[in-house]
This record gives sequence, C-alpha cells and structure tokens, in this order.
Amino acid sequence: MIQTHGCEVLPVIGNPDAYAEGCRYLDRDLNRSFRPDLLQQVGAEQIPSSKLDREVQRAFDLVSRYGIGGIDACGVVIDLHSTTSSMGNSLVVYGRRPADLALAALVQGRLGLPIYLHEADQAQQGFLVESWPCGLVIEVGPVPQMVRHHKILTQTRLALEAVLEACSDALAGRARYPRQLVVHRHLGSLDLPRSQSGSPDAFLHPLRQGSDWQPLRDGDPLFLKADGSCIAYEGADGLVPLFINEAAYAEKSIALSLTLRECWPLSLEWTEAFQAQLSAG
Amino acid sequence: MIQTHGCEVLPVIGNPDAYAEGCRYLDRDLNRSFRPDLLQQVGAEQIPSSKLDREVQRAFDLVSRYGIGGIDACGVVIDLHSTTSSMGNSLVVYGRRPADLALAALVQGRLGLPIYLHEADQAQQGFLVESWPCGLVIEVGPVPQMVRHHKILTQTRLALEAVLEACSDALAGRARYPRQLVVHRHLGSLDLPRSQSGSPDAFLHPLRQGSDWQPLRDGDPLFLKADGSCIAYEGADGLVPLFINEAAYAEKSIALSLTLRECWPLSLEWTEAFQAQLSAG
Repeated sequence: MIQTHGCEVLPVIGNPDAYAEGCRYLDRDLNRSFRPDLLQQVGAEQIPSSKLDREVQRAFDLVSRYGIGGIDACGVVIDLHSTTSSMGNSLVVYGRRPADLALAALVQGRLGLPIYLHEADQAQQGFLVESWPCGLVIEVGPVPQMVRHHKILTQTRLALEAVLEACSDALAGRARYPRQLVVHRHLGSLDLPRSQSGSPDAFLHPLRQGSDWQPLRDGDPLFLKADGSCIAYEGADGLVPLFINEAAYAEKSIALSLTLRECWPLSLEWTEAFQAQLSAG
Repeated sequence: MIQTHGCEVLPVIGNPDAYAEGCRYLDRDLNRSFRPDLLQQVGAEQIPSSKLDREVQRAFDLVSRYGIGGIDACGVVIDLHSTTSSMGNSLVVYGRRPADLALAALVQGRLGLPIYLHEADQAQQGFLVESWPCGLVIEVGPVPQMVRHHKILTQTRLALEAVLEACSDALAGRARYPRQLVVHRHLGSLDLPRSQSGSPDAFLHPLRQGSDWQPLRDGDPLFLKADGSCIAYEGADGLVPLFINEAAYAEKSIALSLTLRECWPLSLEWTEAFQAQLSAG
C-alpha cells in the first residue's frame, strides 16, 4: 500500500513489547536509549542482564541488525512517530548532519513540511536516528496514543512516500533541491509550573493548546492555574512553541519546547553527503 | 476549586499505580474488576496472592473502604473518565437502577448531557459504579490518555458540580426533575474487520471518526480497508454509535458501540429511591 519508489524498505516496529502492553515503553524511553555509551556497555557485556533495561537491549539489537555492518544494514532510517501535540505533518532532524539536511530539504521542497531541528539539549540524548548515518523522524499529530486515525495514517503515508521518493531521486541524480531549508531550531523547553511538592499546579492555557508552530509574543498567556490566574510567556518575540502538551513528555518535565525559525541556504556539502551516503548504502 | 454544594466529597484516584506507570492498568482493566464473584473470592481469600490481579485487589480495597459498611462509606459514587472518542460531555449509567436514573435525569435536566445506558452485555461486566448503591460515570472526550486539556477539565468540572448540586437539591427536597429521561441504550458493539491472522485489516472510516451521537443509516460507511475499499453499516436506520475509536477498547474488540435513543417518562419510583438513598447515606 506504500509507493516505495524503488527503494528497498525493511519495516520494523520499534518497541513491539511496549506496544503489546499499550505503553510507550517498558523500562525506559526507547527513543532516548540509543546513547553510544549505553550501546557500548551492552556490546561489552558490562551490564548484568538483571540490570539491563529492556529498551537499551532493544536499541542494541536494532543497531546490531539494521545499523552499519548489520546483516540487514540500512543506509537511511525513517522513524515514524505520532504525537498528542498539534504538530501536523512534520519532520524532526537531529543536529546538523549534512546528509539529513539534504534529505529534509528535498521533502520540504516537495510537501512544504515544517522541520523541527533538535540539537544541543543535554537533557535529551540518545535518539534512534543518530545511530544511523542518515535519517529523520516523521512526526504527525494530534492523535492519542494507541489510536489509528485515518488522517494521521494518510499524512504519515504522504510524508513517508516523499522521503522514499527523495532517496530514489537523489540516487538517480534527478533530485531537485529547493534553494533553502527552513528549520525551527530547538532552543530549550518549558515545564509546567509546579507546587513545592513537585506536582503541576497549572495546566496549559487554552490559547496555547493546539497552537504549535505559531510564534509567541512577550506576554502571551502560557499556563492557567486552578484559581484562574494566568502565567504569561516572558521572552523574545517570535519564538515558536512545539510539542505543546505532548503526553509522553510530561514525565520529562516538558510542557512545550521553544524554537527559532531560521532559513538556511542550501549547501553543496549537504547534497554531496546525501548522494555519497545513498551510493554507499 | 470545585463547588461541592454542601456535599461531603472524598476524592480518590482509581488506579494510582497504573497512573504512575502511564498505563490504563497493570494486570487487568480496573473498571471491569468489580465483579461480585471476583470481589467475593478476594474477601474469602480464595485466590493465592501470587495469582491475584492487582486491579482486583484494588477493587476490593476500594469497595471495602468506601462501599457499604466501609469506614469511609459513600452513598453515591461519581466515576470520572476521559475518552479518546468524541463523546463530548456525557454520562454513563449502568442498568436501570431507579436512584441512578433519577440522578441522571436531574443532571440532564440541568445541563442537557446525553446519557449512555449500558446494560445486558455479557462481555462487559464488573463496572465500579455497580458496587455502590447509587452512582454514574462522567465521560468526557476526545482527549488523549495522560493529557490535561483545559476543555476536558472544564467540562468535567461542570458535570461534576451538576451531580453534586443534584444530590444537594434532592436531599433538601428542592430537586426539579424534567418530565422525561433521554437515554441511548446499549445494544451491542462492532469490532474492526480482521484478517485471518486476527489483526485488524481496516480502520475507521473518516466519516465515522468523531461522529459519536450521530445516527447511522443503512449503507453508511463504517470502515476503510488499506486498499481503499469501504465497509458499510448494515442495520436498522437510526441506531447511534458511541465510543467510536476509543483507545482502551481496541483490546476488547470494540471499534464502536451501537445504541438506541429512547425517551423514558420520569418515574416516581426513581425519585423516591434516590431520595431514600440520599437520606440513608
């Protein structure tokens, strides 16, 4: 049912055991478990199996099989995510790896999808995509966890097919790149206000709910306390909030992330790196 | 922050251990664990603790403490639920207990909330409310699990305060009942179409997503297969689908439930039973 544009595709469910349980994860967030230090410890058998988180083991198994040198090695990884936030149909790129930026530029040029560029956050490390030489996340929402929604399925397929077409076109030397890449670069995250006991004592303001990708202005309402009082955004005009009220981020103390919209001219370094990666893979 | 209208309220989180894990439940659905046979077995210590589901134990503990004869006995139970379905702000009543119907009628008369009357489904038994002499569920959606959404919070508070006001008014003899109660009576549930392997091979049709409370007509599209073909509703005109695409019901093989809208004239038996229950409690 997916138009693969001639690409060889190996579909894999990231965390089948958690999926069967109806949870995001069993022991720890799988998409924070691809830290090189953790994977190396598993490889060196430095962690007793009784203390080994199941997601770290799963991350190791995925990289061993589908990563560089694995029996089913893949040159490009496409990580499909849904979110309870109103992210729409979007891409997430980790850091500034040239090949990733070229791929994202091709998809953005074709579909116009907005891009969240995540980087330099010490509290959030170990994303799956970073364990492959090239790749990105397709992030679609809003949709509850464990719900199949026709719109989300359609958007995901659209983005997935665009990524595959981009790979196919680039490999065949017929890729048509846009002149620039528009990214929303991660600056940091805001937590809900909390009481002294540590539990949240406010919730997201109605004007912020569902307003992902819409720039903030100093003084805009952010949170609403149970007594009806409002907590406002204090900061630079124009920063763009993303992942607003994402269910899985509450435990990470993230009510929303703040980003800066930037336009980067397309670089020959990107397209050459992408081309080289595809030819090698 | 809640106007209790003079009622004594004991707020309790139903399943705090599951909540801490970010799951609906640990061993089994708590809101199917209040079956008299199960509770009796726990009371008689007929189940070895190693085989005792944590939710059955929790159900037993809740009934022991807050049920009839408990140290914190409550005469009326109000069970707060959210759903990923577009149920709006609604009430669920179990069976036709007269006091429940009187309470539901008062709330419906005040706020106009629609009522799902669940009864006579052998596959779905053991609801919390049934272990108390009087009570109902406040069911609000759509909202993802583990997300606090201002609209859902506001709707829940509105319904909760109306229930408390109804109890207060009835106890004081100043309740003003509507002439009739409009219920949507449960007839049965439909599962997603499944392949021979048992996994779903279709998803909810876009026209059905979010269309809870809207009557079906014979031939209306229900499900969409991955190949684009449509599966239509075949049945009586006018049946009303509820709990469409509720995340927690997928495992129960429920894609939606079918109900029949009925108008029942208010009965003196209901109001007297409610009055008697409040006076006793």
